[in-house]
Amino acid sequence: MRFFTAPVENLIEQFQKLPGVGRKTAQRLAFFILSLPEAEAEGFANAVINAKKLVKFCSECQNLTDTELCSICADNARDKTTVCVVSDPKDVAAIEKTREYNGLYHVLHGCISPMNGIGPDDVRIKELLTRVAKGEIKEVIMATNPDTEGEATAMYISRLLKPFGISTTRLAYGIPVGGHLEFADEMTLTRAIEGRRLMD
Amino acid sequence: MRFFTAPVENLIEQFQKLPGVGRKTAQRLAFFILSLPEAEAEGFANAVINAKKLVKFCSECQNLTDTELCSICADNARDKTTVCVVSDPKDVAAIEKTREYNGLYHVLHGCISPMNGIGPDDVRIKELLTRVAKGEIKEVIMATNPDTEGEATAMYISRLLKPFGISTTRLAYGIPVGGHLEFADEMTLTRAIEGRRLMD
Repeated sequence: MRFFTAPVENLIEQFQKLPGVGRKTAQRLAFFILSLPEAEAEGFANAVINAKKLVKFCSECQNLTDTELCSICADNARDKTTVCVVSDPKDVAAIEKTREYNGLYHVLHGCISPMNGIGPDDVRIKELLTRVAKGEIKEVIMATNPDTEGEATAMYISRLLKPFGISTTRLAYGIPVGGHLEFADEMTLTRAIEGRRLMD
Repeated sequence: MRFFTAPVENLIEQFQKLPGVGRKTAQRLAFFILSLPEAEAEGFANAVINAKKLVKFCSECQNLTDTELCSICADNARDKTTVCVVSDPKDVAAIEKTREYNGLYHVLHGCISPMNGIGPDDVRIKELLTRVAKGEIKEVIMATNPDTEGEATAMYISRLLKPFGISTTRLAYGIPVGGHLEFADEMTLTRAIEGRRLMD
């Protein structure tokens, strides 16, 4: 049953699709949009459209970018012999915030998770092997989340990398076990980078 | 400092402008949008634009509508001799949900609040007097929130209506004092409508 005029109901329904947004919150957000000047509401709508239209994956590290190479891969001041493997673009942002890491990244876009039907081919492991095969990379830091899927993915990749004879390291357990990189504070992440250890 | 590509940062910033949305939530919502098929993201963006473009005020009751008269004012089955005065379109939705009320509404779009510089001319009281002056209305139910501003607004309007010789009633205190109509459950609102009393 609809209690508001169609465009308002439609907006409420759209907000309700967002994760963690129920009917009351959606209503509050919709009325906030209605209270904005038209130009600002358009700015919001355009941000949604542009994010979908302009954002693609970096051809090297698979991070989100609106250019062919992302700004980190295109930066000549970064150490191109070290690659930090993360499962999510949000984790790149989390590590960049520490300002302690000067290497490159590789974004898997997920972790291997047989329970959820996600196999090695569903995350960007092949692209990582292609990069390593080029011979410039000397160390791969596995920075997947320290939970079951993240550990399994790190183990799986470290085995694939063995034939290349490079160092494969794992972030130290500064990060609370079972937690998520994204929510770690800068100091914890910094310590985890400093204390990284060889994988065997 | 920007850790994501520009279109993603822009989307996060736009989400952060929403009430009750911080950086982490904005990030989560932005990545949810990125995970949607392009058509769905466009649907979301269009809902925002259309809500701003199509929604106007009903020429009679000032409720939100996308037509000249809102669906309630245009409904010939509704009792046109009773008008329920609320401060907000969300309150119309709350009362409609009870299915106990068959009259019309008048939406003030706010309450008189001298502390916040909102005087009688800043809410739609004049439009209510114009409607009452036409002579068809026999009862006006004051359904503003039972807080200081709502009470003051109800008192102010009831005094203005006195010369017209119609009944002015107030919702019964089934609603918790100090609470907000929008959050009242259906039963409480139903009882409040049934127990409405004459204002003197």
